Amino acid sequence: MNTTSVKAFGTEAKDKDLQLMQIERREVTPTDIEIDILYCGVCHSDLHTARNDWGGTKYPSVPGHEIIGRITKVGSAVTKFKVGDLAGVGCLVDSCRECESCKQNLEQYCLNGSIGTYNGKDVFLGGHTFGGYSEKIVVDEAFGLHIPENLDLKAVAPLLCAGITTWSPLKHWEVKEGSKVAVVGLGGLGHMAIKLAKGLGANVTLFSRSPDKIQDALDLGADAVVISTYENEMKAVKGKFDLIIDTVPYDHDINPYISTLTINGTLVLVGYIGKMEDALFTPPMIGGRRSVAGSVIGGIKETQEMLDFCGEKNILPEIEMINMQNINEAYERMLKSDVRYRFVIDMQSLKG
Amino acid sequence: MNTTSVKAFGTEAKDKDLQLMQIERREVTPTDIEIDILYCGVCHSDLHTARNDWGGTKYPSVPGHEIIGRITKVGSAVTKFKVGDLAGVGCLVDSCRECESCKQNLEQYCLNGSIGTYNGKDVFLGGHTFGGYSEKIVVDEAFGLHIPENLDLKAVAPLLCAGITTWSPLKHWEVKEGSKVAVVGLGGLGHMAIKLAKGLGANVTLFSRSPDKIQDALDLGADAVVISTYENEMKAVKGKFDLIIDTVPYDHDINPYISTLTINGTLVLVGYIGKMEDALFTPPMIGGRRSVAGSVIGGIKETQEMLDFCGEKNILPEIEMINMQNINEAYERMLKSDVRYRFVIDMQSLKG
Repeated sequence: MNTTSVKAFGTEAKDKDLQLMQIERREVTPTDIEIDILYCGVCHSDLHTARNDWGGTKYPSVPGHEIIGRITKVGSAVTKFKVGDLAGVGCLVDSCRECESCKQNLEQYCLNGSIGTYNGKDVFLGGHTFGGYSEKIVVDEAFGLHIPENLDLKAVAPLLCAGITTWSPLKHWEVKEGSKVAVVGLGGLGHMAIKLAKGLGANVTLFSRSPDKIQDALDLGADAVVISTYENEMKAVKGKFDLIIDTVPYDHDINPYISTLTINGTLVLVGYIGKMEDALFTPPMIGGRRSVAGSVIGGIKETQEMLDFCGEKNILPEIEMINMQNINEAYERMLKSDVRYRFVIDMQSLKG
Repeated sequence: MNTTSVKAFGTEAKDKDLQLMQIERREVTPTDIEIDILYCGVCHSDLHTARNDWGGTKYPSVPGHEIIGRITKVGSAVTKFKVGDLAGVGCLVDSCRECESCKQNLEQYCLNGSIGTYNGKDVFLGGHTFGGYSEKIVVDEAFGLHIPENLDLKAVAPLLCAGITTWSPLKHWEVKEGSKVAVVGLGGLGHMAIKLAKGLGANVTLFSRSPDKIQDALDLGADAVVISTYENEMKAVKGKFDLIIDTVPYDHDINPYISTLTINGTLVLVGYIGKMEDALFTPPMIGGRRSVAGSVIGGIKETQEMLDFCGEKNILPEIEMINMQNINEAYERMLKSDVRYRFVIDMQSLKG
């Protein structure tokens, strides 16, 4: 299979900085599109993968799954896109397309294993997939997304992971006008959860441990902030929320939040992947048919719906632009939560 | 308010045996029915309350909330029942009837606190309510249940707690023909979960730790039994069940079961009230939008639907009849799980 060498930023080992490297991109197959990458968001998963925090990282590792660009080539059978169109690629570049999940447009839950945009199995070239910290990417059009032309492109990138990760549970648990939604944690995911829930007409409360987040949350559109370490504030919201989106990326005690759910309410974990050491206390769950659930990103159809919704409502994340060469410094700042609320790489900096 | 003294069996303190005592029952108000109790099932909650295992027990304590009898008096405004009708009383004798839960027929989740059949607040006579280990009970007709005449009355009693506790989640999570349901634990609740899920047309698997439960489960109608300590058997059912009804009444690790849920599947806790010490492992939840929920008994409307369903399908628990005088011995046997699967008291023994 013919390939083209393109510039990328990646790392050769878990303890090494990311640096300039060359990777190969396949020639478009009949159903592929080739995208010249304009912007790529920086997700916590990028950092976790580069540093092998979850194990299983294949090196060299080129992260990036919040990709926005313009189409430079289309395969002979492509129908959804044409050269010059804007296109996005999120966390997935393929799935089996045949299983019960895929048939329901839930490619993120593909029973045969979906293919990640990076660190997935490259079924065309062998080896593993490389992400959006690169000049170009080639993907099957079925996994490409249309980007509303009216949006500020730089800021669209984080919708492809942070956006859909919070949108999917909001839609699955049927948040609508008047729903009472709470968000735990105000980072990349949390700030999108606030904006999207507000966009859907919900009344939105942020749970935070730091009073210094109050103004930020209100500025982002939250209706209220509850400081989770203040017992009287927690008591005042007992039994209040239809849905809680918990975006906290580290182990924490979810019991205090469960009691703030309504009868039939659900707390959805989207941030923390691991063991929750605090013992789950069952009485509030049994006594109110409350649930604790998990959710990961979203399917392609749902991602498109989210992008279209954000286009209509002009909903975008708050971002800070960086050059590709500053990615290692950006990772360090992310570890200190020193970003409001998402870094986006101007990929011109890689090309220049 | 006029009252009648009736014989009952109860206890004066947590470390005392149950014994014969006299309690007062109110004269019927316009909306009340008076029931001559024929049979009363013996629930684990009876034992926990008598012994103050959960704290908060008020003494003297007269347990019993699986009550079947015939109506001996009706108030002037009663419309649902007439003298001579069969009637049942389950775990609740009242609720606020005004809150969001009550308006949705979810009296079990009454936001202002439903009134338990025993150990609840007696708003008529002061003090606390006394349960079905007694000759008669007087309840508002709104909390009385019609009993299908075709059923074997003795065995109907446990439907009023063990039955509805498992029926409610089966219905809430929409179990139907072809659903894949698993039941954890084979006791009073577990054996009803198997029978009711089968009645709804589900394919039913029992999870058990003891191979000596296999034949029992198959006899009760289960399609399969998975021994949860056999790793290969657990692997074989990964991702299989739409709903798991977990009836185990003590702390246990639910993580192995979560992985056996389908995408969007739910594990519902109905048995264990307390802290689950094993750390909840989030990846199977996040990676498959799986949920852990709780559920308690059911509303009055739903309980009536369950009784009617059991009448149509002739579904009844397996019971062992005892005399009222043998209740203390029965409690000891329950603690050793030496009952298949529910004790029912022949209340004639109290009267005789």
